[in-house]
Amino acid sequence: MTIVLKLGGSVVTDKDAPETVDREALEAASRTIAAHGDRDLVVIHGGGSFGHHHAAEHGVSRTTGTHDTEAIRAIHGAMGRLNAAVVDALAAEGVPAIPVRPLSAGRRSAGGELQLPTEQVKTLLAEGFVPVLHGDVIAHEEHGATILSGDELVCALGGALSVDRVGLCSAVPGVLDGGDVIPEIDAFEDVAHALGASESTDVTGGMAGKVRALLDLETTAFVFDRNGLEPFLKGEEPGTRIGWER
Amino acid sequence: MTIVLKLGGSVVTDKDAPETVDREALEAASRTIAAHGDRDLVVIHGGGSFGHHHAAEHGVSRTTGTHDTEAIRAIHGAMGRLNAAVVDALAAEGVPAIPVRPLSAGRRSAGGELQLPTEQVKTLLAEGFVPVLHGDVIAHEEHGATILSGDELVCALGGALSVDRVGLCSAVPGVLDGGDVIPEIDAFEDVAHALGASESTDVTGGMAGKVRALLDLETTAFVFDRNGLEPFLKGEEPGTRIGWER
Repeated sequence: MTIVLKLGGSVVTDKDAPETVDREALEAASRTIAAHGDRDLVVIHGGGSFGHHHAAEHGVSRTTGTHDTEAIRAIHGAMGRLNAAVVDALAAEGVPAIPVRPLSAGRRSAGGELQLPTEQVKTLLAEGFVPVLHGDVIAHEEHGATILSGDELVCALGGALSVDRVGLCSAVPGVLDGGDVIPEIDAFEDVAHALGASESTDVTGGMAGKVRALLDLETTAFVFDRNGLEPFLKGEEPGTRIGWER
Repeated sequence: MTIVLKLGGSVVTDKDAPETVDREALEAASRTIAAHGDRDLVVIHGGGSFGHHHAAEHGVSRTTGTHDTEAIRAIHGAMGRLNAAVVDALAAEGVPAIPVRPLSAGRRSAGGELQLPTEQVKTLLAEGFVPVLHGDVIAHEEHGATILSGDELVCALGGALSVDRVGLCSAVPGVLDGGDVIPEIDAFEDVAHALGASESTDVTGGMAGKVRALLDLETTAFVFDRNGLEPFLKGEEPGTRIGWER
């Protein structure tokens, strides 16, 4: 049983204050993971108030690159500080967390396709560790370096590893139709009206792109908020289930 | 013209004091690299007083692994602090240095063979950056994690990239026969008497293993001390030239 869990930037940081960890939320999530994460687990976290701030300041995005080494180191450095906080919080609860930093491992082709080697993650998992990856800046052929989002990592690892369940823990309790959580999504057409078609081209920009990408994965994904973390890790079905019923 | 340069732990740290950077030496090396490194350059540094201390304390070596997450994070964390110091020193001189951390990228098979993806390094080089790698701890199938030496990285990158020259800057002015620097080595047999046969099985343990590994590379390598760094970067032949005359 292998699980990929993404902790959104809004779950582990205070999004309104630059480079501020939400200690209480991070510690609570770490306790829950320690208590219920008795399976092969990969943790991915977003940037929250660490990465986005620096990325915006330097005008770097997933598609707009930079050759400014200082900008790259600023973004990567901030994400390293957040990653260290997440790894430390997990370790404090007894989770065998090991940092895995995407800038050190992967690259994008000129066309923007992510090439992320995953043998190191598989070996860490097989040896009983919990790899902790994060949204990062990454080398991009012909563009210098661009942003790699946590959601892209979810899809890359969900596709490359034999993953049984993917969980996205964020600020919302699920995929919403108006104010209501949609319990399950098996085809994009069924929810296109609720998500808005205009967002659907960006894999990470909005919920529509996220849903499309998760539907493409050959694994079941769940979108939930903090309250859904424990049920998700216990094998229940919190929030919205997306795709792939075998 | 692609160059792989290893700065030995003894060049960038004070080996006698735990976790102490030799600032003067590091800044001098950074200035020399900034002045003469006008080619594709990969920098690798050893552990010196950062990595070795923690590795020894936790009983981890290239062949003796650990599943102790705290030990892994201690070694990796110390090497991260040294790597940040090296990257910062290079950046301060205008070198577009980007950290690349082996634990995030590679793994060893059960038999100990290093598998290090290098596409990220190639893309960073092509985009004009200077990747800075370091000796590290690395996931090792069936053994948890073991030490990865800077010399192993030299060989892995020297083999995977199209490298024109490899330089090993360390505490000695070259490969020594008694007190004299051997100017060139084209076959191990020629120097076996000077190096001692007993060391020859360990790829990183002593000079003999180092020479054997460098002879196996399809590129010319040089072993020199601090005084040889500038001549090496200028295309001269300081210290000992090892192998591969095309």
